[in-house]
Amino acid sequence: MHSKPHHTIHEAHHHFGWDHSIPPVMTVAPGTIIEFECPDASGGQLSKDSTVADVPNIDFEKVNPVTGPVFIDGAEPGDALKVTIHAFQPSGWGWTANIHGFGLLADQFADPALHIWTYDKVGMGPAAYSPMGQVPLKPFPGTIGLAPAEAGLHSVVPPRRIGGNLDIRDLAAGTELYLPVEVAGALFSVGDTHAAQGDGEVCGTAIESPMSVVLGFDLVKQAGLQTPRFTTPGPVSRHLDGKGYEVTTGVGPDLMEGARSALSQMIDLLCGRYAMQPVEAYMLCSVCGDLRVSEIVDMPNWVVSFYFPRLVLE
Amino acid sequence: MHSKPHHTIHEAHHHFGWDHSIPPVMTVAPGTIIEFECPDASGGQLSKDSTVADVPNIDFEKVNPVTGPVFIDGAEPGDALKVTIHAFQPSGWGWTANIHGFGLLADQFADPALHIWTYDKVGMGPAAYSPMGQVPLKPFPGTIGLAPAEAGLHSVVPPRRIGGNLDIRDLAAGTELYLPVEVAGALFSVGDTHAAQGDGEVCGTAIESPMSVVLGFDLVKQAGLQTPRFTTPGPVSRHLDGKGYEVTTGVGPDLMEGARSALSQMIDLLCGRYAMQPVEAYMLCSVCGDLRVSEIVDMPNWVVSFYFPRLVLE
Repeated sequence: MHSKPHHTIHEAHHHFGWDHSIPPVMTVAPGTIIEFECPDASGGQLSKDSTVADVPNIDFEKVNPVTGPVFIDGAEPGDALKVTIHAFQPSGWGWTANIHGFGLLADQFADPALHIWTYDKVGMGPAAYSPMGQVPLKPFPGTIGLAPAEAGLHSVVPPRRIGGNLDIRDLAAGTELYLPVEVAGALFSVGDTHAAQGDGEVCGTAIESPMSVVLGFDLVKQAGLQTPRFTTPGPVSRHLDGKGYEVTTGVGPDLMEGARSALSQMIDLLCGRYAMQPVEAYMLCSVCGDLRVSEIVDMPNWVVSFYFPRLVLE
Repeated sequence: MHSKPHHTIHEAHHHFGWDHSIPPVMTVAPGTIIEFECPDASGGQLSKDSTVADVPNIDFEKVNPVTGPVFIDGAEPGDALKVTIHAFQPSGWGWTANIHGFGLLADQFADPALHIWTYDKVGMGPAAYSPMGQVPLKPFPGTIGLAPAEAGLHSVVPPRRIGGNLDIRDLAAGTELYLPVEVAGALFSVGDTHAAQGDGEVCGTAIESPMSVVLGFDLVKQAGLQTPRFTTPGPVSRHLDGKGYEVTTGVGPDLMEGARSALSQMIDLLCGRYAMQPVEAYMLCSVCGDLRVSEIVDMPNWVVSFYFPRLVLE
């Protein structure tokens, strides 16, 4: 089996934020495959037994712990680190929260909310959201990246050119990710594992779920890569698209306002059709709905669309 | 057959821009199915025999002619017009152009370019772009909308809350589109038919192809719709996704700059891998690649991704 790991890095070896002075846990040659244990994005501040009362107490200094860093022998600035995403061993539980001040509609959803998910970690069938719907799963690491050249501690929250909190839902098993190396050894770390997420991660959280990730490392010397890129081995939406989509649109001169408008209208549609509170619809959109740019050229108005997969609720 | 039209409106009955004072071609009751003949987006200024020398001569006052308008009996402001997109009868040819001053990378691609396509209008197999690639087809109307309440002539170029130049590539056969009605009778028109387009329509044009469209009309009284929405009957990307995607990213605080960066990097990737000129890659991205918002919540940096379907070139 190609994806059998040579090493395991346990979750105790995690750090908060990006800093190239953090000593590597391990030095490996290109070609090495490593299993990373990843805690959930709250770093254990939330658990299966948490309630909404725990959400406001989350310490943002302790979110998105990443496991690592790993020093890749021979990696130099200007190279690309090729990361082959081999496999996941999910934990069977996760959480989705609305956190005050965070999310695309933070101004409209001030109150905290929490949804605890359980799922079949072996069969990986869709996870029930409520009696009325279930969400297909596709695990991926939300945060995956390298140490930046710039000295000091850099927040883990924003993604950067060297990766980090990318939250790209298609970094799933079989995908090959290329990250621009800025420091000797690349200094790779990973965490913030998600059992499912839609394009946009609109409420700010996915199905945040601890799990192990098996990754392989190779180098592309002097790749000249500006920002992360990746190759998927096959389709990316077939777990969701079987029954088609409900789609709302935002039309106007600002992509951000268009995205907000499309999402707001999808929340209204779901709440009007199903017995659902707005914040529930918001969180459900985050874990399975997709933000797309339908057109970006018909001056001065662009169209951003929110695609909600019908099989989740129908 | 449900989609057998009751009427045909020929392309001679077209108009330029939106104006509620344009007299309707026809008045029909809800439940009516109509076939619309649609000229190409240049309104016949380009043909199968056109060359790149014709592109700078395009008169923008005569682009995107739309066939109509149709007065829907009983439609009143506040209603939604439900448009069922039944079928297309494509012409077998089309064009894609880079037009000075138009497109997501207009600053980088100043010179005109033109690609003439021919395709099998019966079998609707993929259309060859060059010996090295072919693009799967999925016809849809780029411009589909209603007359606005505001008096006067409004440019056809920008999409609006009542639809228009939406350029949403999933308004394909089987989709149900809902448009907000602003004037008595709705005053529906359609045109700018595309044989294929990716999300974003990044170079500003799709496979611009004259064709007939069969549409059904119904009313939803007092729908309270803000902007267009639609329901797809099934998957939307399976014509493209069989071999997965190459994906580039734009990471930063501005969605527009992120989109431009992701696209620029995809053009570089395609030109580096294949013997392709940048403007060829740009036009190819427009007809089959997709702009998606991967994350829009990890302040202050968002991730916009450009997805290029591998089956087009592999």
